Amino acid sequence: MISWKNLDTLSAYQSLCALKGRVKLQEAMAGENGARRVAAYTVPMAAGLQYHFAAKQVDDVVLAALKELAREAQLNEKYEALYNGDVINTGEKRLVLHQLTRGQLGKDVVADGVNKRDFYVAQQKKAADFANQVHEGKITNAQGEKFTTVVQIGIGGSDLGPRAMYLALENWAKQNGCFKMEARFISNVDPDDAASVLKGIDVAHSLFVLVSKSGTTLETLTNESFVKEALRAAGLDPARHMVAVTSETSPLAKSSDYLAAFFMDDYIGGRYSSTSCVGGAVLSLAFGPDVFARFLQGAAEEDALAKETDLMKNPAMLDALIGVYERNVQGYPATAVLPYSQALSRFPAHLQQLDMESNGKSVNRFGEPVSYVTGPVIFGEPGTNGQHSFYQLLHQGTDIVPLQFVGFKKSQAGMDVTIQGSTSQQKLCANVAAQIMAFACGKQDENPNKSFAGGRPSSIIIGDQLTPEALGALLAHFENKVMFQGFVWNLNSFDQEGVQLGKVLAKRVLAHETDGALKAFSDLMDI
Amino acid sequence: MISWKNLDTLSAYQSLCALKGRVKLQEAMAGENGARRVAAYTVPMAAGLQYHFAAKQVDDVVLAALKELAREAQLNEKYEALYNGDVINTGEKRLVLHQLTRGQLGKDVVADGVNKRDFYVAQQKKAADFANQVHEGKITNAQGEKFTTVVQIGIGGSDLGPRAMYLALENWAKQNGCFKMEARFISNVDPDDAASVLKGIDVAHSLFVLVSKSGTTLETLTNESFVKEALRAAGLDPARHMVAVTSETSPLAKSSDYLAAFFMDDYIGGRYSSTSCVGGAVLSLAFGPDVFARFLQGAAEEDALAKETDLMKNPAMLDALIGVYERNVQGYPATAVLPYSQALSRFPAHLQQLDMESNGKSVNRFGEPVSYVTGPVIFGEPGTNGQHSFYQLLHQGTDIVPLQFVGFKKSQAGMDVTIQGSTSQQKLCANVAAQIMAFACGKQDENPNKSFAGGRPSSIIIGDQLTPEALGALLAHFENKVMFQGFVWNLNSFDQEGVQLGKVLAKRVLAHETDGALKAFSDLMDI
Repeated sequence: MISWKNLDTLSAYQSLCALKGRVKLQEAMAGENGARRVAAYTVPMAAGLQYHFAAKQVDDVVLAALKELAREAQLNEKYEALYNGDVINTGEKRLVLHQLTRGQLGKDVVADGVNKRDFYVAQQKKAADFANQVHEGKITNAQGEKFTTVVQIGIGGSDLGPRAMYLALENWAKQNGCFKMEARFISNVDPDDAASVLKGIDVAHSLFVLVSKSGTTLETLTNESFVKEALRAAGLDPARHMVAVTSETSPLAKSSDYLAAFFMDDYIGGRYSSTSCVGGAVLSLAFGPDVFARFLQGAAEEDALAKETDLMKNPAMLDALIGVYERNVQGYPATAVLPYSQALSRFPAHLQQLDMESNGKSVNRFGEPVSYVTGPVIFGEPGTNGQHSFYQLLHQGTDIVPLQFVGFKKSQAGMDVTIQGSTSQQKLCANVAAQIMAFACGKQDENPNKSFAGGRPSSIIIGDQLTPEALGALLAHFENKVMFQGFVWNLNSFDQEGVQLGKVLAKRVLAHETDGALKAFSDLMDI
Repeated sequence: MISWKNLDTLSAYQSLCALKGRVKLQEAMAGENGARRVAAYTVPMAAGLQYHFAAKQVDDVVLAALKELAREAQLNEKYEALYNGDVINTGEKRLVLHQLTRGQLGKDVVADGVNKRDFYVAQQKKAADFANQVHEGKITNAQGEKFTTVVQIGIGGSDLGPRAMYLALENWAKQNGCFKMEARFISNVDPDDAASVLKGIDVAHSLFVLVSKSGTTLETLTNESFVKEALRAAGLDPARHMVAVTSETSPLAKSSDYLAAFFMDDYIGGRYSSTSCVGGAVLSLAFGPDVFARFLQGAAEEDALAKETDLMKNPAMLDALIGVYERNVQGYPATAVLPYSQALSRFPAHLQQLDMESNGKSVNRFGEPVSYVTGPVIFGEPGTNGQHSFYQLLHQGTDIVPLQFVGFKKSQAGMDVTIQGSTSQQKLCANVAAQIMAFACGKQDENPNKSFAGGRPSSIIIGDQLTPEALGALLAHFENKVMFQGFVWNLNSFDQEGVQLGKVLAKRVLAHETDGALKAFSDLMDI
């Protein structure tokens, strides 16, 4: 029997609060004790990744308290309920089924008279077949010429995740002979976004993927019109250049305006949709369906690990609990995501949405205000770039910001250069190792301006190379981390009511139905 | 006589602290009173921009306290000392002269026997002449063919600012007939960064701009070698394809490895160097020297406004002081930068460096620990994209995050579409106006999950169009805001000692001179 309780009603949380400030990283990570922590505080992930948390402010006592919190908060039971099809998204009265896009974790989930795993797989298959036909030249433009570019039109979850995944695998695909089509993305209602993309591509050989679950997203429909106008201006028939990813009930579903339609449903939130056809269509077109299948495989294996009841074998749950300790006990307001991989340049932006939109909430799943802090601010840029930018504050600022590093031993593109006895990839890896220790241990100096206090916690996920499987595992890890944190905070992590008010007011502005300050600002913007 | 004092020793600060929580935006911004605030709380900026702070948690009483703080902290006097050539960067014993790259604000500054304004202008002229010769086909590759692409090799301040400025003006330049050359950027030591750029360009027609003040930046020199190897592999002479931007004393300055060298000096920090040749070379090559000159003009006018002693005529000082009130009195840990302009997609990343590297410090300018918080975490993405991502937390999360909006009435690219009675640009503007009010006033709902508490402060800078002048003004505004905040916090905003420890440890890793946890992490990364 699952009971959904606020964090501050759990006795394990009271015990955890008593452990505030317990671990001093400056001491814990020094000398051979530090090396022992690195060896011990490691959890295997899928696709050969490993989660290392030696430089987090935990020890065996804190870990025991986190285990107890996981037990009392019933994290395993809640995950089980989720993947077996309970109505976890209480606000919108929906199931939460994104994991089913990559594997069957529990019993069959039947909703609306349909086996949902079968449904998602069938849609992926439909997108795969379509992509294969495009690659084989069986689906072409009106002149019978092959499409060379795919352009995703979507915003939020229909943009950030698929875009981050595309960039993550672009160089890998080129190097491994599976790069099929260039992908571009149009998201912003700012007309300069669509204009810039359209001016940079050959529209006659471009295929547009329109992604909107409801079929009513303002930005996406506006950009669709923008694109259709450009196609017509070039003498092209838009219906020969567009496919839709939408729900079966949306106005786009059966329209003859599209070459094909691939379906998603209300049980997959936008920010969790990269493994559905929202990511599947564009990624299968760009890299081929086999690469997308490998990406799903990595995610499926990571999802299975999240079922582990032994906390030390469940990296997502452990990561989530350490995050709760940092946020609610240690009192840190933000978390930085720092991938040492240029291919992951937009991965932090995706995690920013995933985390902040899921858990940036002040009421629990029953709509009651909570009296503790929930989701932190998430931000980040790739290393080593960030080192020459905002790391100053991370090292010597007045607030402590926990850090999530990601690193790989091998590069993707297979080009490198040896300077001063080391390759660029070795320099990259040396830098992330060095940063972990600089943050943890700091360094005293006679000049206080050159002193580093240390005591700044980080974890790192290390992999061999950023492959499709590794990317899938990485994505699922963070999705599951966010899910577990939502369980601990007793939130509904799967709705986003906070985006509604702005939409309502914007419509009012466009209808000129405003007064007071809103009218004044509208006038200032010449609307 | 200037006296440098800690914030918490100022009596004006004690008065300000007594005003915590004074203004309730839900009430202040409601009805006609809200409209009156919008009209009153407006400060003109350069290039036709305006700074609007009606939706900040201030009123005339708070503003009076901020004025008194500005007076007691001697903000005008400290700025005057800076532009007249005092040693403001105390840690490194350097002048701070980036404003001289765009105008003469005070008396002549002579250092090292040179009039520094003349020096910076001469270097800009040299870069302009070079750019003109490239555009005219007088400087070509070995085959006598024109260069079509410019690639900046730099990191941190040599990358983020110039990259953000290039993206900001790319569409504008194309639309206004002054787009000369495509620009690309290589920054990360990750070999996949350089590999990806090199694979995407025509190296035979590419000109590389190597930017390193010291001539010793690891990433930049490594990427230079990377590029040179690629040039040689293509049968090209690297010396025919490269220019350097560096200091006169650097090993790069007189090398025959470059077609030309443009100089900067130690009085301009990397993050303040976009208006020096660090930005000037690449931007003049991309858009022509006239566009760069217009960009400088906007910055110069904004710099002049920062001299105003009337706080209501000095937008940078006012913005800075409101930020101090939010950070130190209201206790907010982060600030989001939200440009409603896709062209400003990387402007938040530049401000993230500018702000966090300048003021992310725990010791004052004398090296003594301060007992108040300093620089906040800065993050952001363009709107409307962010609305579909992390705005959920901004609206309904448990922490309040002050917001900095930027918006323009006109788009850049001159393409638009009318859907449901409004253009995309109107929709964009309607959204930002709506967001300001949604954040300020919120909305009560019977369902607490659909309730918005409001009371979330924001300001907006509004302009007619993102032109070179407007961009220069925008850049200078934030540089000066950060400078004034550094004065208030009694920090040295112009050094960055916090980046050093990581560099030292990374070298040790590469030399295999490690033990303990650092060796353990190095082993995990296969170094």
